Amino acid sequence: MKPLGPIPEGFEAIDGELAITGRKASDLVEAAGASPLFVYSKDLIAARLAMLRGALPDRVHVNYAIKANSFSPLLQFISELVDGLDIASGGELAMLQAIGVDGARISFAGPGKRDTELEAAISAGVTLNLESDNEARRALAIAERLGKTPRLAIRVNPDFELKGSGMKMGGGAKPFGVDAERVPALAREIIAAGCEWRGLHIFTGSQALDADAVAETQGNILDLAHRIAVEAGVTLPKLNMGGGFGVPYFSGDTPLDIEKVGEKLSKRLETLPETLAEAELFVELGRYLVGEAGVYLTRILDRKESHGEVYLVTDGGLHHQLAASGNFGTVVRRNYPVAIASRFGAEPEEIANVVGCLCTPLDRLADKAHLPRAEVGDLVAVFCAGAYGASASPAAFLAQGPAAEVLI
Amino acid sequence: MKPLGPIPEGFEAIDGELAITGRKASDLVEAAGASPLFVYSKDLIAARLAMLRGALPDRVHVNYAIKANSFSPLLQFISELVDGLDIASGGELAMLQAIGVDGARISFAGPGKRDTELEAAISAGVTLNLESDNEARRALAIAERLGKTPRLAIRVNPDFELKGSGMKMGGGAKPFGVDAERVPALAREIIAAGCEWRGLHIFTGSQALDADAVAETQGNILDLAHRIAVEAGVTLPKLNMGGGFGVPYFSGDTPLDIEKVGEKLSKRLETLPETLAEAELFVELGRYLVGEAGVYLTRILDRKESHGEVYLVTDGGLHHQLAASGNFGTVVRRNYPVAIASRFGAEPEEIANVVGCLCTPLDRLADKAHLPRAEVGDLVAVFCAGAYGASASPAAFLAQGPAAEVLI
Repeated sequence: MKPLGPIPEGFEAIDGELAITGRKASDLVEAAGASPLFVYSKDLIAARLAMLRGALPDRVHVNYAIKANSFSPLLQFISELVDGLDIASGGELAMLQAIGVDGARISFAGPGKRDTELEAAISAGVTLNLESDNEARRALAIAERLGKTPRLAIRVNPDFELKGSGMKMGGGAKPFGVDAERVPALAREIIAAGCEWRGLHIFTGSQALDADAVAETQGNILDLAHRIAVEAGVTLPKLNMGGGFGVPYFSGDTPLDIEKVGEKLSKRLETLPETLAEAELFVELGRYLVGEAGVYLTRILDRKESHGEVYLVTDGGLHHQLAASGNFGTVVRRNYPVAIASRFGAEPEEIANVVGCLCTPLDRLADKAHLPRAEVGDLVAVFCAGAYGASASPAAFLAQGPAAEVLI
Repeated sequence: MKPLGPIPEGFEAIDGELAITGRKASDLVEAAGASPLFVYSKDLIAARLAMLRGALPDRVHVNYAIKANSFSPLLQFISELVDGLDIASGGELAMLQAIGVDGARISFAGPGKRDTELEAAISAGVTLNLESDNEARRALAIAERLGKTPRLAIRVNPDFELKGSGMKMGGGAKPFGVDAERVPALAREIIAAGCEWRGLHIFTGSQALDADAVAETQGNILDLAHRIAVEAGVTLPKLNMGGGFGVPYFSGDTPLDIEKVGEKLSKRLETLPETLAEAELFVELGRYLVGEAGVYLTRILDRKESHGEVYLVTDGGLHHQLAASGNFGTVVRRNYPVAIASRFGAEPEEIANVVGCLCTPLDRLADKAHLPRAEVGDLVAVFCAGAYGASASPAAFLAQGPAAEVLI
């Protein structure tokens, strides 16, 4: 038997079935007319944001990194709740423009920005988080050609990392941003060139669950931003402190203590140096805002036994849930939180493997999981499906096509 | 420094640039009007098939598993060269129907077939490789409702594996096929129900480079097929022996000795028992036919240094080349064969990291590779991109969209 990840709070059983904000899984699938189905909950997203804003100092603004989930109705909903939006491509800019988000609320980071993407972003008044000297010069040249004043920030490759983060994006050689010691010179250069100076973007890692590590890193980010500002001889109108707030996926994971993060940050902000006194402070969160608000529902097509093991074969799989299958950013596969949605809350009765419909042994949703006995036609729920699910999976693999998505 | 995988045969330099069947990389990208670009070579596919047919006994037919690459022009081309086509979904069936392939040439395997997929396949005269008793009964019921005689084979979960294969699909408990000991009863049942009996499908693994292991497994497959036929009291009109022939991706990999595989199989076929005397024998290959015939070309957008390391940031990445990034079916990331296409054959001069344009540290195409010095605007080639590239990668991730593809 292998343990399942912890089911996030906010889900209940109605008539013995998983309900998402009061709506039964089977009703949701029926209404959508299709399985598999991603269900995203407005209530859960709004509750998460309210909880976060309650914990963080008032001064700290919250940005949504749309790469986590760019389903258009969800984008529309969340764009009205957050202070700003972070994008990683021209395609993501187009998504936000399609729903009427003002470019002034958008920041663009990404190590490989094409000229066409820089043009579109500068034209729309988007803040560019510059990733290199070369990109800075390209941006300035394009802005001059367009007759626009570009909004420029510098993405810093910090000399430290976010300890315990699932993905490190700072500390040592990295493709992201400009090494910290070269930032002051570049800042002076772009300010002298007449840009609208938008400060720094310091992103150190993602998916951290340790509040002390997050708080320590936030302190380091503020220190580094101050040192850079002093050396450059500038003040910082804006500082994007990155994100890194994680969600529990696996057995043994515990939620990030966001109250503690907020308290430590409040204390730290009491003694902010002059260079940062006027700075707008931002955190940039994707997964933390939407990850636990999404559930992937997939129907059992077959129940079979092989050499004494039970296999529940579903109509979903890694083409929608690459990370849950253990094939994206993980070395050792562990089970996500998974349940039999049709028998939610029922006592576990057997050990079963939940697999997808793809003809590859990589396509697993739960290994040797302790579950209520499930039958053909039952629905399986994979939780923590709100971030890096639909958009981060190979939907065209084996010509299966994308899953349906719905925001409720 | 980390080694690169071996560049497949059949590529040359023209004017110091990578050429694919006589056409320079830069000309191909210009003609396509876009990078990144997947280029697939008809000549290389045809040469591989000719070599394979020369090595295998005449009696052995060759099927193409379209999951490896279902780019429509490539499908059209290869469908005229091979004896049959293997699909893994109703979507793949629709792709073949769109180019006019007769259902009688198609076999359908996959552990989670929906009723709609069974209907479409039975209507088209496709052979179903049944994965369970339950699926057999569903197929028979659907055929009766449609007034059709279904073509049915049984997929066997064998008791042995293909040694050294990259992905094991036999040996022990598996979601694929019917455990060998239960196959005779099911065979009798579906024959008694009046199906057109199409024999067995025995797939043991994929991506094997050891000819002795492949040959031993083929012997085991023939033995197992015979035992099942005897116990069921039937002869086998057809036996799909699976595939498993690998291609070299990584440093130290050597090509499969296909001559040896062919010789051993020829010898084995001299003493075939009565149950298999009339059987049409098939191998089912995907990657082996097209993997080395494809090259992924991506342009360098930035060249930067961080803490003394060189990063070449391209306009491609894991959204097109998930496997090459090390995030699909591999535990330890190793470098695929990668070259600076614009300086093909030039002496290596520096250690560089080739990364994609995505804002994630997972997006790597080559780590610490010894390469000629490359500049912004140069093209990078990732070889072995003909199979499980475009279709097996999350093209929508960060809204980057799919790569262009061309068959030349």
